[in-house]
Amino acid sequence: MARKTKKLWQGRFSAPPSRLAEEYTASLRFDRRLWSYDLRGSEVHCQMLARQGIIPRKDADKILVGLAQVRKEFLSDRFHFLPSDEDIHTAIERRLTEIVGPAGGHLHTARSRNDQVVLDMRLYLKEVIGNVRVALDEVREAIARLARKHIDVVMPGYTHQQRAQPVLLAHHLLAYHEMLGRDDERFADCRSRVDLLPLGSGALAGVPYPIDRGYVAQQLGFHRISDNSIDAVSDRDFIAEFLAATAILFVHLSRLCADLTLWATAEFGFVEFPDEFSTGSSIMPQKKNPDVAELVRGKSGRIFGSLQAVLTMMKGLPLAYQSDLQEDKEPTFDAADTALATLRTLAAMLPGLRFDAERMRAAAGGFLLATELADFLVERGLPFREAHGVVGGIVRHCLKTGKGLDKLTLAELRRFSARFDREVMSRLTPEAAIERRNTPGGTARQNVERRLDKIGV
Amino acid sequence: MARKTKKLWQGRFSAPPSRLAEEYTASLRFDRRLWSYDLRGSEVHCQMLARQGIIPRKDADKILVGLAQVRKEFLSDRFHFLPSDEDIHTAIERRLTEIVGPAGGHLHTARSRNDQVVLDMRLYLKEVIGNVRVALDEVREAIARLARKHIDVVMPGYTHQQRAQPVLLAHHLLAYHEMLGRDDERFADCRSRVDLLPLGSGALAGVPYPIDRGYVAQQLGFHRISDNSIDAVSDRDFIAEFLAATAILFVHLSRLCADLTLWATAEFGFVEFPDEFSTGSSIMPQKKNPDVAELVRGKSGRIFGSLQAVLTMMKGLPLAYQSDLQEDKEPTFDAADTALATLRTLAAMLPGLRFDAERMRAAAGGFLLATELADFLVERGLPFREAHGVVGGIVRHCLKTGKGLDKLTLAELRRFSARFDREVMSRLTPEAAIERRNTPGGTARQNVERRLDKIGV
Amino acid sequence: MARKTKKLWQGRFSAPPSRLAEEYTASLRFDRRLWSYDLRGSEVHCQMLARQGIIPRKDADKILVGLAQVRKEFLSDRFHFLPSDEDIHTAIERRLTEIVGPAGGHLHTARSRNDQVVLDMRLYLKEVIGNVRVALDEVREAIARLARKHIDVVMPGYTHQQRAQPVLLAHHLLAYHEMLGRDDERFADCRSRVDLLPLGSGALAGVPYPIDRGYVAQQLGFHRISDNSIDAVSDRDFIAEFLAATAILFVHLSRLCADLTLWATAEFGFVEFPDEFSTGSSIMPQKKNPDVAELVRGKSGRIFGSLQAVLTMMKGLPLAYQSDLQEDKEPTFDAADTALATLRTLAAMLPGLRFDAERMRAAAGGFLLATELADFLVERGLPFREAHGVVGGIVRHCLKTGKGLDKLTLAELRRFSARFDREVMSRLTPEAAIERRNTPGGTARQNVERRLDKIGV
Amino acid sequence: MARKTKKLWQGRFSAPPSRLAEEYTASLRFDRRLWSYDLRGSEVHCQMLARQGIIPRKDADKILVGLAQVRKEFLSDRFHFLPSDEDIHTAIERRLTEIVGPAGGHLHTARSRNDQVVLDMRLYLKEVIGNVRVALDEVREAIARLARKHIDVVMPGYTHQQRAQPVLLAHHLLAYHEMLGRDDERFADCRSRVDLLPLGSGALAGVPYPIDRGYVAQQLGFHRISDNSIDAVSDRDFIAEFLAATAILFVHLSRLCADLTLWATAEFGFVEFPDEFSTGSSIMPQKKNPDVAELVRGKSGRIFGSLQAVLTMMKGLPLAYQSDLQEDKEPTFDAADTALATLRTLAAMLPGLRFDAERMRAAAGGFLLATELADFLVERGLPFREAHGVVGGIVRHCLKTGKGLDKLTLAELRRFSARFDREVMSRLTPEAAIERRNTPGGTARQNVERRLDKIGV
Repeated sequence: MARKTKKLWQGRFSAPPSRLAEEYTASLRFDRRLWSYDLRGSEVHCQMLARQGIIPRKDADKILVGLAQVRKEFLSDRFHFLPSDEDIHTAIERRLTEIVGPAGGHLHTARSRNDQVVLDMRLYLKEVIGNVRVALDEVREAIARLARKHIDVVMPGYTHQQRAQPVLLAHHLLAYHEMLGRDDERFADCRSRVDLLPLGSGALAGVPYPIDRGYVAQQLGFHRISDNSIDAVSDRDFIAEFLAATAILFVHLSRLCADLTLWATAEFGFVEFPDEFSTGSSIMPQKKNPDVAELVRGKSGRIFGSLQAVLTMMKGLPLAYQSDLQEDKEPTFDAADTALATLRTLAAMLPGLRFDAERMRAAAGGFLLATELADFLVERGLPFREAHGVVGGIVRHCLKTGKGLDKLTLAELRRFSARFDREVMSRLTPEAAIERRNTPGGTARQNVERRLDKIGV
Repeated sequence: MARKTKKLWQGRFSAPPSRLAEEYTASLRFDRRLWSYDLRGSEVHCQMLARQGIIPRKDADKILVGLAQVRKEFLSDRFHFLPSDEDIHTAIERRLTEIVGPAGGHLHTARSRNDQVVLDMRLYLKEVIGNVRVALDEVREAIARLARKHIDVVMPGYTHQQRAQPVLLAHHLLAYHEMLGRDDERFADCRSRVDLLPLGSGALAGVPYPIDRGYVAQQLGFHRISDNSIDAVSDRDFIAEFLAATAILFVHLSRLCADLTLWATAEFGFVEFPDEFSTGSSIMPQKKNPDVAELVRGKSGRIFGSLQAVLTMMKGLPLAYQSDLQEDKEPTFDAADTALATLRTLAAMLPGLRFDAERMRAAAGGFLLATELADFLVERGLPFREAHGVVGGIVRHCLKTGKGLDKLTLAELRRFSARFDREVMSRLTPEAAIERRNTPGGTARQNVERRLDKIGV
Repeated sequence: MARKTKKLWQGRFSAPPSRLAEEYTASLRFDRRLWSYDLRGSEVHCQMLARQGIIPRKDADKILVGLAQVRKEFLSDRFHFLPSDEDIHTAIERRLTEIVGPAGGHLHTARSRNDQVVLDMRLYLKEVIGNVRVALDEVREAIARLARKHIDVVMPGYTHQQRAQPVLLAHHLLAYHEMLGRDDERFADCRSRVDLLPLGSGALAGVPYPIDRGYVAQQLGFHRISDNSIDAVSDRDFIAEFLAATAILFVHLSRLCADLTLWATAEFGFVEFPDEFSTGSSIMPQKKNPDVAELVRGKSGRIFGSLQAVLTMMKGLPLAYQSDLQEDKEPTFDAADTALATLRTLAAMLPGLRFDAERMRAAAGGFLLATELADFLVERGLPFREAHGVVGGIVRHCLKTGKGLDKLTLAELRRFSARFDREVMSRLTPEAAIERRNTPGGTARQNVERRLDKIGV
Repeated sequence: MARKTKKLWQGRFSAPPSRLAEEYTASLRFDRRLWSYDLRGSEVHCQMLARQGIIPRKDADKILVGLAQVRKEFLSDRFHFLPSDEDIHTAIERRLTEIVGPAGGHLHTARSRNDQVVLDMRLYLKEVIGNVRVALDEVREAIARLARKHIDVVMPGYTHQQRAQPVLLAHHLLAYHEMLGRDDERFADCRSRVDLLPLGSGALAGVPYPIDRGYVAQQLGFHRISDNSIDAVSDRDFIAEFLAATAILFVHLSRLCADLTLWATAEFGFVEFPDEFSTGSSIMPQKKNPDVAELVRGKSGRIFGSLQAVLTMMKGLPLAYQSDLQEDKEPTFDAADTALATLRTLAAMLPGLRFDAERMRAAAGGFLLATELADFLVERGLPFREAHGVVGGIVRHCLKTGKGLDKLTLAELRRFSARFDREVMSRLTPEAAIERRNTPGGTARQNVERRLDKIGV
């Protein structure tokens, strides 16, 4: 196949790249989605070059018109890539030069693909993190609303997947609100490190032109400027940090979805997924599968994998830029897309969950009140450790006789400890147990409502 | 947007899936590449159903004609997917039914998507592993040919990236031949576990039809049949194993490329990459970058990440099929594509490497011969540990005086040990050092040539 | 602190290692557990050196006596390490020399720590894999015995954690038997690649002595000899493969434990863990936690992490030996210990599980029989896809009216399809559904029993 | 073996744990190092219980005396663990009760091991992060001092491991100063999320006692209090975040060490490691290996693995506490120990590096000045892209004729472009190239000095 355009760096070479090498090294397949960031960066770079007198104003104007034309072509899906385009940067510069002629050759003054590509990634990631945080907010709000709506619902709290103590469903749901709140903080912290202008670093050493990096930063919305050109072009820790924050987010989302799929089993029967977010079986007509929730859980793997991919890729690379770094993009794009799609789908799904308050309440009694008995004995002066032992004996008695803990009479209780008195009987309901846990962070309704008020739903 | 077709499992549901859920759960974007395996599986399944009298022969014939038509549409790139197609299986069945009418509804008899999808993956992976092994063979042959071609080239062997002892370049290259040979074994072992027919497992429990799994296996080229239907639809260890084998392959390829990029530095100057497999710089006209080799190294990360993704996805999933398993595909496809492209590109690149035999030879003398001195003293009766100490002193003397080890006179040597005699002088060349390492596995030329003979290049 | 012994390689250096560097680089803390393999290797190496006339027989005899003495000191826990011992190899050689004097200095003839350490690891791993396979066998047998013991127990099979179709508990359990069987194959395959003598490779280039590698291999029980000295000292793919096999094993074990902890919830109530393998709560007297099963699941993470650690460590290392490789040991030891402890604990725990057959059977009816209805219609001539639709309607009807699927009368069924006849009524039991899935791999009792017979329990 | 003490939770159980289970589930082997944090937490908890009137003051006083006694036993290494001690919490409570009798049983009032263990981990990690930041600071200072000391040293800057443009060694070193500065920020951000009191969350639901969490937080130095008891006991994202920050730190350290080992090769010869931080070879007397630097690189793997381990362990766990979480400790301890040892060793090693300024300067000329020619043409009005092409031709000419770029005469240059004039000749030195890159972030000496001034070395 004849190639119509030469590589931009062809001068020094006596043979063109082989087709295999060209395909192997091309990043256009995935970096084309950076087109708008690349254009924006070029526009500002060009303005600055002209303002500083580095390139002629009239050439700059031509370039700007050309870039506007390129933008239009992208927006209307008419931009035509050539097989020889290595990456989005060269594709755009190639097209620009087709449009404006040799003047286009000025655009790469005082710039290298090394600082250009990391600029594009930073612009992209700043926007992505903003979007992720908005979507995260929607999920958090959906959770808080669910909690408010079900403020009356009592359920078993679990440890080791065993029923432990009664809690409010709202309290359980708000645990996720907390986790996602920390995720939001992590993304904000990450974004503050993404928010740094690398342009002006050249290939690795800086550029020998009187550029104005402050102007470029301000126009592109960056609050800081990189202090070391070698670092600026060769590090990708901001990407690893983004992937780590996303991985931790998926830990949380996967746990939420694991809880929901568990509760949606026939055996638990605590929740029903909306039909709109379930799928059926090709063979079993009765099936209703919590497909979305399963996939959220399953997709955690790819995020963890992408984080490992980037860490592995970066490890032990001598400075400065190396082509290995090209492998930063696909994992980032995939993680960003996956995070956004997951958060948006969850935000739409959560409001449709239907909880079965009766089943939940029914599961919250019995042995879950054993701690209440122990705490009662402590109030009556027994050291906790001894109280725990006494109630352990009561539990064993109940297991042997098949009698529910909340079905014991006072007389029966007193056979285990004379410290039990009439008052203990009023303690043996889930509601009483919940109400008494009213110190900060506890599941008592007043606590949970106070938290919801603060959240503002 | 109006959807023209209902989901195959819609019967039980009162609301259709939301657009968000539909997009989130759809696998068509990536599983469409399984079309040919899916068709092949369906053809054989249909044949079997008719042979066993499970479905009417005339309906089977219609289905086979329909499937042939679908195949043609795929081959000519005219198969038209609908937005409502969830995955490749339902897309094909939907289209089949459009072509042949209700008779198409017979095809899903005695089959579930759960056993169908794992069949497709096994057919795909068997073929992929075959292709990987062919490509691996090409790389191994290229390496062996390079070794044969440079059988005379002497170079420094390194440990800790420090020059250690002289070796033949051919010996160094053949180390990679060994590694890749074990990779080949691992792929073969893996393939023997991929080679197992899961079809006939139904959704998870087997099927209540008198199917003939032996016939299906034989027609599809499987040598074994799964023994447990629940295991067959819910495990993906064959995929994790494939990814692990690929990860180890990339350890080897990344080391090879690390060696080559190191040798291609100006400082080493041992090798020059062919222009066809190098790229230039957008800003520095003199640059010639070993782009392909860097990317091979960088792409290791994505393979390791994909392995982690699949392990993470599988971990702790209750049996049997869960939607999380849908996440098995993208990492597998990506690893397969990456492995094939990498191997093929390397096989094309390696023959073009130009080694600088003179520079390599020049770097192989001097201190690299220190072990020869120690071994000489051992021959003359000194325990090795003492000999090592004596030579350590000689080295220190040389460092202090700036004199090369191979420039010392016998008289100087004898100042450190009286056991040195005239014979030692003939030992102090790289060639002599190499020649003496002639026990099996050593770098002596006769060993290396014997190995090459055995390899057959 | 005064150091009593010099480093073995001190000769060339003008300053001793700093305490920080010494501590940082020392591997003795973990590699001391290789002492017995190291001794065994040294004994055989010494024998061979004497047999070949490379060292004097009388020195060899002294060394062998010394090594026997060292062995005794280890066995009786009286071996005394010095702070200056870098690793197990130098510790043993140092002690040997203390015992036998300068003759001990002969032992390192024709050997380097580079081939010695990989010898030790191969000897260790061969033994470990053997032990893992024995323990794996015990778990498989425990599973098969459980299956045999509960051959009558009917339970719901699940997909998407939703009840799907009735299966035998034995069939579900045997799914794990299959998985672990493949794990066993993988370990066997791995072991065949571990089973290779690296000794004789020297530092990297082979050794200039007339050694007899065949003799050494035979004495140490190796079936193959490494073909390339550089590869032999610098690759660790056999370790990565061992970790990958262990990672896949833990996928399987974590799934088994996830199933069991799920079944042990109050809501499922399918199984009770033996008290001996459960723990209680420090605060809730009623709790009985499936601690062992949770930890098995949790420990998967460390195995995956160790695999990642070794892959990362190996990636992109130029040949040959580099100190990075020292990091191969801790992950290997940890994975081996974890695998053995886990398998042995599971083998002891599994027989004590108590299944609640009644609850399981009770959960296996109702909608789980929907596929039976569809399959019945297929038998009566309806294409499966249409049958699926009809039964979907029946399910919706039942959900709306709250009537169980197996409670419908024939008349009611016939309202949905006239093809239903009296015979259908006999199909609507879990036992009938199970019995009909009797093609190979299906859950029918005769299949499961045949499999158990073949397993031999 | 007779067990002298019962488990604290034994009441409900009819059989004691099996030895295998006990060993498998015990965490004492590794969590014993938390003893001081556990004691501190208990002291403050006890004070608070007494202040709030929850337990009798005189019992509290006994407990405090007992805890002081326990502390002494630990400090003097005389604390005696029993085989039945499950973890550090129960070991301490057991011993306390031995010392003070039944009064000790009061200590577990209003507390669970679930909130206690996460308290210990947070106290531990706050301290660790503080220590890591101090050690990080020492490395950064060592780097800055090296830079200041070698402010005159010119070297080749590299991209793709190929010589690219001249830079100052100080500039290259300061790139690492920047990276480690961001690591410090990440640790600070992480610490602010570690800094949160979980105590008071009980097992999962809060506690039914009038506790004063504010007092406890203040006494223990926490600035925030957890808002949700379920979240507080079941999430470990602060640990994953710590591991992620450490993983990124090791990316940076591994790159620094990769640079240094590369520069220490005979071929580069840019740097010599101090003898105190190098090791020798057991077989090759001349070897001097950069062992420390290699190990830093190699240890990256274990950190990445630990991060993966914790993410995997957390993924998809239903709330709240599960025993899987016990697996959070070993990776955290190992990462903390590894980070501290690595940073401290590097801080000690870096000042001893000896750079060979002459070799570095000699490598920085020639083709590295090609960009200068292109930039010169741009100044004279040629668009950059054309200038790049012209200089590409010059480079090719030089390669063909074997003439150095800086050896060309003006006449020769003018054969390629008439825009070259006399001034260009002064540009063709590394120093001139460096000096001209004086916009912010560039390698010009004034920039680098300004940065060093700001750092304050």
